[in-house]
Formats: sequence, structure tokens, C-alpha cells
Amino acid sequence: MRAVNILRRKRDGHALDASEIDAFVRGVTSGEWPDYQAAALLMAIVLRGMNAHETAHLTRAMVESGTRLDWSDLPGPKVDKHSTGGVGDKTSLILAPLAAACGCVVPMMSGRGLGHTGGTLDKLEAIPGFRVDLAKEQMWSVLHAAGCVMVGQTRDVAPADKKLYALRDVTGTVESIPLITASILSKKIAEGIDALVMDVKCGHGAFMKTRADARALADSIVATGRNNGVRTEAFITAMDAPLGEMIGNAMEVREATDTLRNQGPKDLESLTVTLVSGMVLLGGLAKTLGEAEAKVRSTLASGAALERWRLMIELQGGDPHVVDDPTRLAVAPQQLLIRAEHSGFVGEIHAEYVGLATMLLGAGRDRVEDAVDHAVGVRILAKPGEKVTHGDALVEVHYRNETRLPEAVVLLQKAWRIDDAPPPETPLILETVT
Amino acid sequence: MRAVNILRRKRDGHALDASEIDAFVRGVTSGEWPDYQAAALLMAIVLRGMNAHETAHLTRAMVESGTRLDWSDLPGPKVDKHSTGGVGDKTSLILAPLAAACGCVVPMMSGRGLGHTGGTLDKLEAIPGFRVDLAKEQMWSVLHAAGCVMVGQTRDVAPADKKLYALRDVTGTVESIPLITASILSKKIAEGIDALVMDVKCGHGAFMKTRADARALADSIVATGRNNGVRTEAFITAMDAPLGEMIGNAMEVREATDTLRNQGPKDLESLTVTLVSGMVLLGGLAKTLGEAEAKVRSTLASGAALERWRLMIELQGGDPHVVDDPTRLAVAPQQLLIRAEHSGFVGEIHAEYVGLATMLLGAGRDRVEDAVDHAVGVRILAKPGEKVTHGDALVEVHYRNETRLPEAVVLLQKAWRIDDAPPPETPLILETVT
Repeated sequence: MRAVNILRRKRDGHALDASEIDAFVRGVTSGEWPDYQAAALLMAIVLRGMNAHETAHLTRAMVESGTRLDWSDLPGPKVDKHSTGGVGDKTSLILAPLAAACGCVVPMMSGRGLGHTGGTLDKLEAIPGFRVDLAKEQMWSVLHAAGCVMVGQTRDVAPADKKLYALRDVTGTVESIPLITASILSKKIAEGIDALVMDVKCGHGAFMKTRADARALADSIVATGRNNGVRTEAFITAMDAPLGEMIGNAMEVREATDTLRNQGPKDLESLTVTLVSGMVLLGGLAKTLGEAEAKVRSTLASGAALERWRLMIELQGGDPHVVDDPTRLAVAPQQLLIRAEHSGFVGEIHAEYVGLATMLLGAGRDRVEDAVDHAVGVRILAKPGEKVTHGDALVEVHYRNETRLPEAVVLLQKAWRIDDAPPPETPLILETVT
Repeated sequence: MRAVNILRRKRDGHALDASEIDAFVRGVTSGEWPDYQAAALLMAIVLRGMNAHETAHLTRAMVESGTRLDWSDLPGPKVDKHSTGGVGDKTSLILAPLAAACGCVVPMMSGRGLGHTGGTLDKLEAIPGFRVDLAKEQMWSVLHAAGCVMVGQTRDVAPADKKLYALRDVTGTVESIPLITASILSKKIAEGIDALVMDVKCGHGAFMKTRADARALADSIVATGRNNGVRTEAFITAMDAPLGEMIGNAMEVREATDTLRNQGPKDLESLTVTLVSGMVLLGGLAKTLGEAEAKVRSTLASGAALERWRLMIELQGGDPHVVDDPTRLAVAPQQLLIRAEHSGFVGEIHAEYVGLATMLLGAGRDRVEDAVDHAVGVRILAKPGEKVTHGDALVEVHYRNETRLPEAVVLLQKAWRIDDAPPPETPLILETVT
């Protein structure tokens, strides 16, 4: 099967069949297909699209390009969650131990942050000693003991995705529902899960800016997951304002721990409970959503999830004492407060500006190869809807040096909109796609 | 200017501005743009198109990627012709000396054959000793003495086109009016011409199968040529049946010479006279098309064009005696005749089948690196409209060995359609685009 014929068929708007998609994915993985042919096909897919069958097969072929993990010797449903990325979204840190405490097995592989959104691995590495690069046998031991494990993607998981993603990034072919779907799901399916809850963020702090785009991605992921034998459900959730109060790696570990101790911010707790309830239901550990939610709430209240968190940290080489003594986490040497310039109600906190500001402080990276500073970040002191008086502190900036501080401050000042009247209440969960 | 931003703009359907097109062409020429980015942009151009401004600027940028020849120290208009390629189309061999004899300066750069259509360079090399790789100074000498020169593209002419064409060939991005226009015109404009006559072939033996596609290309070439200061005119001409009677390199040289001696087939002579008349008119050597045609016909009748042909062959190192003694050209060792299986009228000769058959005999190539056999080919004995009786010879096959002969014979048998009634007369010149 000649690559150029496959290219021509997609260029002309035809659906590719399974053997054509296999040839593409195998060719990319082995290097037999040169990058220029892969890039041309990616652009044709962006502009011509792929139907549900093609997307499902592309996903399957990408899974089969590497190893598919198998945890069938561990009891319990294997369930995971994936989010399209938001600002202040430390949900995974709470969700994995909470779902594990509810009876799920959570073999979570995550990524690093890029641009204005953070990454779970960067947050975990804020815990002194925590290792995210475990071999399969080590993952098994942690899963067996704690019910959850949180690691980086191993080399042999969906290698086709690694190659394709690197190429998409430099050829303007990131923005494609079928390609995004296959990229996300191939990695998740390769983890060896039975069920997946997807959190599709929507809003100006998210990759999907509009509800229509978010819904299209959610629909595609649910259909493609099921097509590949993974029970899949998606929530479309608001990402206009940052989630919780802390943004920055160590600060988010602290907030996640607080939430596991039932002392977290309401929005963060509420979203996490919803997502874990979805996992419990899909995992067959409850019969109704109400039952699932009751189970999740009682588990959280019991402190069992906090114990799983402590255990997982210890088993992955981290310092478990951070759970009780957060001063063991890195702290930035300097703080400053940004204050309200007039009185009113916080109408909006522009999540993308806040995310970019924390990136400028060093908490995130704009290039894959950059290191992050675990200590720096911001703490939100006035959330949307809160009444503020001229001079009240809106946000506390934790920084190390002043190089890019002025830029960050300008962004943070722009991020808060103070209105005369309180904003309408907006739900965090916008839609459920099943 | 980041490549990925340019890619995204074309992907999203925007027109690229001059600086973006320059960045692309310069990046491709220097190698600064990796092939995968160029390939992705080519696919985006195929699917999103380019407007007339973009096409004109792409053409200009491709010309400027290399040397633009300058013959201003030679008197007379610099005029050339280009054809999109047909079967049996040896027009250039007649046209260049004929236009030169009419007062044009014809610095023609041509290509080699690929697939079912032949190439002018392959035909010229059927003349013993003929050299197509002349330096600029040698081209000047031949032009100065004979008024025409026929060479291959030099390395420094439109190097961007060489890179892009090689990439288009393997990425399914050949079929694009703007890309075809820029590829053709960049090479022609770099020759240093004032005017160009374009022969857009249309029909099942041509690259453009439909009249609409042929017209779109003709319109684009005329507009883009003018936009770049080259007076341009296009003829859309029929390529359903092969042109003339001979197909095969040495055989076509012989037929071209016969035509220059006023003993050629009518269709070939008629098309050549039309194209040269266009050159004479665009070159300002006649005031009306009628005057131009009269001049061309009288020049052809005078034998002056045959003398230019002889002179050019000699100056380019070829054996000028082939003009008077065609037995000096290579002859295939074996011949066979294909005969009519029933009586009637030749309704159609499928040019593509005939072209593919001669390629299988060895006259053409299906891969760029293959060598061609100058001797082999076919001679058409019954043209469309001719009455034939069962058993009459339709075509004479000149071959060297029998390896692929059976395949070629099957194609030739399929190529002739014998009808009960004569076919309607169809014109060779379908349309003129000015």
C-alpha cells in the first residue's frame, strides 16, 4: 500500500479503511513513512476530518503501536480520568486516591504542563523524593497496595502518539477532533483501563473555547472509547475562572491534601466528587449516580482517601510527612499582594491570564525542555461572586525573583474584573455526555 | 515569522501575504523549513486554494529563489511555449526552430517524460550526440546563431520548484491549480522570456481530463503570467487521441523533421502553426493573428525552419545529418502489426493507453531514475475517422524485446475503438484564453 495513495484518498475526502490507517500508524512508528508524508496526511485529516469508524480505528492502531498494560490480576474495576487541561486543576491528585478508596484501581499516567496550564507530573514532583518514572512491576506493587499509582507515560505506551504529537505541534495540525481523540484515548486505553471519565474543559482558560467545540470533542471521545471497549463518559466543565484557590505546583499539592482532609475549596471538591462518582458508577461499584455520590462523599469524609494519598506518596518514594506538615513543601521566598482598585463584586477571573502569570513566575513552561520552579505560584483571595472593597487583597503572588514579575503582575491585574453587581451564578458542570 | 503560524493561517482558509509566501519559499530553498512543514503547507494549499495574488506572488518568489536569465543583448522578442504534456506531442521540436525562423528568440528549457507522456529532452537525446546540458554562455551562442536553443533546466533555475516538486510528488499534492501554475511559470519566467504561449491539453490522454479543469488552469496561467510581466496566452487543445502518427523518441524526431519539411501529419502541423502564430503575435512580430499565421505558414513552406533545426542540432553537438538521413536515428529491431478485428470507422484512439503501451515498450519511464530506449515506439496507421476493413493494420509496434510486449499489445488493442459510423469531427483547438 503506497503512502501517496492513502494521502490522495484522504485529500479527496474519502474515509480511510482499517488497512490504510494501519499502514499509516505502523509506517510512522517504524519510521518507514517519512515525516513529510505523515505531516501531509495530518493536514489532510485536519481539513477533511475522519468519521467515527476511522477515529476508532486510528485510536486502536495507536494503542497497538506499543504495549497495552494489563492489571487483570488485581481485583476491582480499572478506571481513570482525563482532563483537557485547566488552570488550577489539581483534581487528579485528589481523585486518584479517592477513587482508589472507593474500590477502583487507578493506573494513572499523566503529562507535564505546557503554556498556561499545569501538568500533574510537575505537581507530584513538588513532593520531595516523589518518583513518576516507575517500571511496570513497580506500578503493579503501588496499585496493589494503594489502589492508585500516578506516573509518567512509559516509552512503550502508544509510541505512535509520541511521534505524531511532536509532528502535529510543528505543523499546525493540533486542532482536529479525531486527532485529539486518538491521542488522548490511545494513551488511556494503553494503561489497561475498563472505564474512563473525561473532563472536557470549556471556556477562555481551556483548549476548547466554545461549548460547541467542547461538545464535539466530548461526543467523539465517548463514541471512540466505547468503540474500543472502554466504558466512557464525559463531563463538560467550566474553565473560565481557575479551579480552587491555589495555582503553582507545591501550592496545589497543599490544596489537594486540604481537600482530601475535607478542608478544600468548594468548587474543587465538588468537581472532584462528580468525576469520582462517574468513575465509581462506570466501574460498577454503584448502581445509580446518587448511590455513587453518597459512597464518594462518605469515603472522603472518612479520611480513607487521605490515607491512600499518604500511602501512594510513600510507595512512590515521596516524603509522606508533607501530608501532615505542608511546610515540608517548597515555599517561595517572596510574597506580594495585588489589591482591588475599586469596590464591587468579583465578576470574572480570567483563567488564561492567571495561568500565564504563574508560568511567567516559573511555575510552568512555555517550551517542553524548560524546568519548573515548584515553590512559586499564586493564591486566589477573592473568587467570582465575592464582594470586595477598594484596597482588599485579590491575590497573593509567591515569587522567587523579579525578572518576569512585572509582566505577571500586569496579567493578574487584568485577570480580575470588578463589577457593580454580583455575576449570575454559573454551574461548574455544564453538561454530561454519556 | 514562525512556520507553524503560516501553516495555521492557510489551514484556516486565510490568504497568505507576500512576506509569508517569501518565508515559505526561502525556507524551503535554504532547507531552514523542514520537509514536514513544507508538506503540511502544500496539503493545506491543495485543500484551501490560493487566490490570484497569492499565486502570482508564489510564482515570483519561486523565480527569485534562483537565477533569472537575461537575453536582452540579443535582438528580437524572447518567447516560449509550454505544454502540460500529451501523447505523441513533439510540437516543441518543430515550434522552436519555426518560431526562431519567424524572428522570435526561443530559450526553451524542457523536462523529461514520466508516466504515459513523453518528454522533449528524451526526444532530443534520440539524436546522436545532442547535448541538453548547456551552460548559460553556450545557450547564448546557440540562441545567437540559430534563434533557438533546447536544453534541460539548469540547477540554478527556480531551485524552490525542484524541492517543492519532489515533495509534491510523494505527498499527494500535485493536483492544485495554484501549485501547478507556479511550478510551470516559475521555470518559464526564469528563462528570461517576454511572452509565453501555453498549450493546456484536455482529454483522457492529458493531465487535465475535463474542460472545466483545463480552463481553470489556463485562466490561472494567463493571469499569473501577466501579473509577473510576461505576456501570456493559452490554448486549450484536445488530447483524446495521440498527436501525429509517431510515438517514441527517435520516431518523433523523424516526424518533427518531416513536418519541418512540410511532409508532416495535418493535426501536428496545424497545432504547431497555431501555437507559433500565437508566439509571433505576442512577440510583436505581427499585428493580427491572420498576419502572424500567414508569416508562420510562409516561413514553414520556405524551408527556413528546417535550416534552423539543422543548425541548432549541430550547435548542440548533435548529428545534423539525421535531418536528411533519418536512418541515422536508432531503429528498433522488431516490428509487429496490430490489425482491426472488424470493419468500420476508427471512432477513438485512447491516448493514455497508447502512451502507457509505449512506456511499457521502453520509450518512457514510470520512475524518474529509469533510462529510456530511444528506438522503440508505435506508428499509428489508422487515425480517428478513417475507414478500416477487418484485418487492416491499425498500428505498427517497434520493439526491442518481448518482456512487457504482451501488456503493451493488450493496451493498444484496447486503445482503438471501431464504430459503424464515422465519429463527429472534433476540433483540435478547443478554446483560446487571452
